[in-house]
Amino acid sequence: MNRREFNLGLLATIGSVATVESVTAHTPSVGLSSQTQLRVNQARLIEHIDALAEFGKNPQGGVSRLAYSEADLKGRAFVQGLMRTAKLDVTIDAAGNILGRRPGSANLTVLLFGSHIDTVPEGGNYDGVVGSLGAIEVAQTLSENNVTTRHPLEVVIFQNEEGGLIGSRAMDGELTEKELDLVSRSGKTIREGIKFIGGSPEQIAGARRKIGDIAAYVELHIEQGGTLEAEKIDIGIVEGIVGINWWDVTIEGFANHAGTTAMNNRHDALLAGAKFIEAVNRIVTSEPGRQVGTVGRVQALPGAPNVIPGRVILSLELRDLDAAKINRLFGKIRAEAQQIGTASGTTFDFKEINVNIPAPTDQRVREVIRTAAGELRLSTKQMPSGAGHDAQDMARLAPVGMIFVPSIGGISHSPREFSRPQDIANGANVLLHTLLKLDRAF
Amino acid sequence: MNRREFNLGLLATIGSVATVESVTAHTPSVGLSSQTQLRVNQARLIEHIDALAEFGKNPQGGVSRLAYSEADLKGRAFVQGLMRTAKLDVTIDAAGNILGRRPGSANLTVLLFGSHIDTVPEGGNYDGVVGSLGAIEVAQTLSENNVTTRHPLEVVIFQNEEGGLIGSRAMDGELTEKELDLVSRSGKTIREGIKFIGGSPEQIAGARRKIGDIAAYVELHIEQGGTLEAEKIDIGIVEGIVGINWWDVTIEGFANHAGTTAMNNRHDALLAGAKFIEAVNRIVTSEPGRQVGTVGRVQALPGAPNVIPGRVILSLELRDLDAAKINRLFGKIRAEAQQIGTASGTTFDFKEINVNIPAPTDQRVREVIRTAAGELRLSTKQMPSGAGHDAQDMARLAPVGMIFVPSIGGISHSPREFSRPQDIANGANVLLHTLLKLDRAF
Repeated sequence: MNRREFNLGLLATIGSVATVESVTAHTPSVGLSSQTQLRVNQARLIEHIDALAEFGKNPQGGVSRLAYSEADLKGRAFVQGLMRTAKLDVTIDAAGNILGRRPGSANLTVLLFGSHIDTVPEGGNYDGVVGSLGAIEVAQTLSENNVTTRHPLEVVIFQNEEGGLIGSRAMDGELTEKELDLVSRSGKTIREGIKFIGGSPEQIAGARRKIGDIAAYVELHIEQGGTLEAEKIDIGIVEGIVGINWWDVTIEGFANHAGTTAMNNRHDALLAGAKFIEAVNRIVTSEPGRQVGTVGRVQALPGAPNVIPGRVILSLELRDLDAAKINRLFGKIRAEAQQIGTASGTTFDFKEINVNIPAPTDQRVREVIRTAAGELRLSTKQMPSGAGHDAQDMARLAPVGMIFVPSIGGISHSPREFSRPQDIANGANVLLHTLLKLDRAF
Repeated sequence: MNRREFNLGLLATIGSVATVESVTAHTPSVGLSSQTQLRVNQARLIEHIDALAEFGKNPQGGVSRLAYSEADLKGRAFVQGLMRTAKLDVTIDAAGNILGRRPGSANLTVLLFGSHIDTVPEGGNYDGVVGSLGAIEVAQTLSENNVTTRHPLEVVIFQNEEGGLIGSRAMDGELTEKELDLVSRSGKTIREGIKFIGGSPEQIAGARRKIGDIAAYVELHIEQGGTLEAEKIDIGIVEGIVGINWWDVTIEGFANHAGTTAMNNRHDALLAGAKFIEAVNRIVTSEPGRQVGTVGRVQALPGAPNVIPGRVILSLELRDLDAAKINRLFGKIRAEAQQIGTASGTTFDFKEINVNIPAPTDQRVREVIRTAAGELRLSTKQMPSGAGHDAQDMARLAPVGMIFVPSIGGISHSPREFSRPQDIANGANVLLHTLLKLDRAF
């Protein structure tokens, strides 16, 4: 019996008990020793994930459940129903985050866990959803098994993660009044959107939590990259969420007639841009590590086939767990841009658009995740999160941990996003046991 | 006295006679021997150029006199007035080209000369205008000096040169019925535009000329490149109008998350595009000659800073006098694109959008231009025209010649387009004497 078959057998056994409510009701409270046997109900979790995928489903495949859309509203209603079934006390905070609370036996701060259910346009149904429905499944498993924790537990479904971590940034107090008037991808302003989903933008400070309010925050999520699948690892233990620096780079050359301007008499901003794009790739890959650098957007002006581009505007994004490394790479890139400019008679201007500083996870939480996964006989790998997550905002308030499960083909933000049922259940079980261990340790 | 001062002195003498109409009327017909002394009136020509610049003048400088616009209509009316003053018999052909005819003494085919007065958006007032008003100035100079040529002379102001050589392509029969329904930059269809300027699109075949109808076509134009100015040459003798091949190139990679996709796991279509742009430049400049290659337009999709581009569409334009050279360069470029694709896991697709075959000028006409310039003590250089011109369509019907004058800084299609008054007058004088010589020789 290989490891996967072993897990599957165990889950089937536990699942058959846990899914029948009448049985659950008669199950006596589970003691500390038997808590280690607890498993989530994989079949039910996958059923919930599939059901949520109906809200915002695209005919061509995948899901568009933009924050503040009708699909988002319906998905949120569905999720609130699941929370109530899991015996959670459901509220919506002033920022529009959905909270599902379960009391603890002691007078302690809350253990918070969850994710988000909004998606990018033409996205998939795993990013955010696995962690959200995984968290609810954990709560239901505890409820069915009459497990009472010392800390109160709180499942959180953060609103509008994809549009700039809006819900979690309201919770840590970063969201500004000014941002409320920005138009989200749904077409509504964030202020209108918060109202639409049942929040109170005028009282948004009420959603704020202080340092010390939260004992720990744990988020289950799909990896979104391809490392776990490629290396056949079950669980990623996130060592931190990378810093993200984004610049807009403007290259000024001189627009001129493509037919009458000799090759040696050009100041072609796009040729300089091409050399820059190649340099970014070369510099970012010139040292070991998991840093990434991307030019994702480019505009050449005036943009006609018969005119030499006089101006190019492109984006530069660098990500790494180590802010110093980002700065070092950027220094090299800027120096090379200077050289390209001098050689081609163009100028480079860098405008910093956004900086997210790296958010390390808590070492103790990481150790608890590692132990929980080990006891479940799941292989683990410590890794950075290259994507941003609500956890990075929670890291400003509390110790955080993140649990990754494999993304097939490393694809995300796409209709082709997929994670295997077994992997999802593995992640939810690691979340379950991480929380139980944190409850005892924190 | 240097050459320029000499010319200026001579012009001032001639000009003072030619500008006073009452004097002109009494001037006896100029015989063959004194025809060599004829000079255009530089001051009047520059005055006309400045006056035309008022139609479509932009507040920020430069001129937007798009074909079929109100400014175009007013500019055309002004030009027709100048033609009548120059004693030309003005008509508008079915395609909307303005024609100004002057009879000849013998039963011979027409000597055609002229250019266009429409401009690109945010253009200058020299491209097309110098040749158009230069041609009218030549006619007026002949009229004032009672010169009767053997051939009838016809000044032509081709309509909509900048929007695809529409007027001259109607004249050589290339313009298709289907093209009449394309929308021009004025917002009108070409059909509507032709009506707007007084043509008859339903009778457009009436504008057509046959091989043998035209004795020769000569066009004066600004160089648009910077060669003449840089080398301090007065007159460019155009050896031909380059062929222009335009492809749209589509690069398919794979769009993915810029944060979670490791550098070695990417199929970045923009990185492949950057290498392609660099390769185009390297290959085009790898052999001697005046060929040019340009990537003027680029689009990266989906075009977000945090998404690796999955698709890039860019334009590739190659120009040279030798079609075989264009094909050879394209072959090298396509081969290198294949290599880039293989190395990066992307694919390149080339779609041919437009091909203009090279149009050589007539060797005899070139020799006549060279002799005329020499007699005026102007220095000359034989050179290709990197830009397209109405002359390339006339080359299908008749022997053609083109006379270039320097563009300061090689700038055109820009408010900064400029040619010096002396250079413009030099060009008009070369046009004048080229026509007189062709009249005797052809």
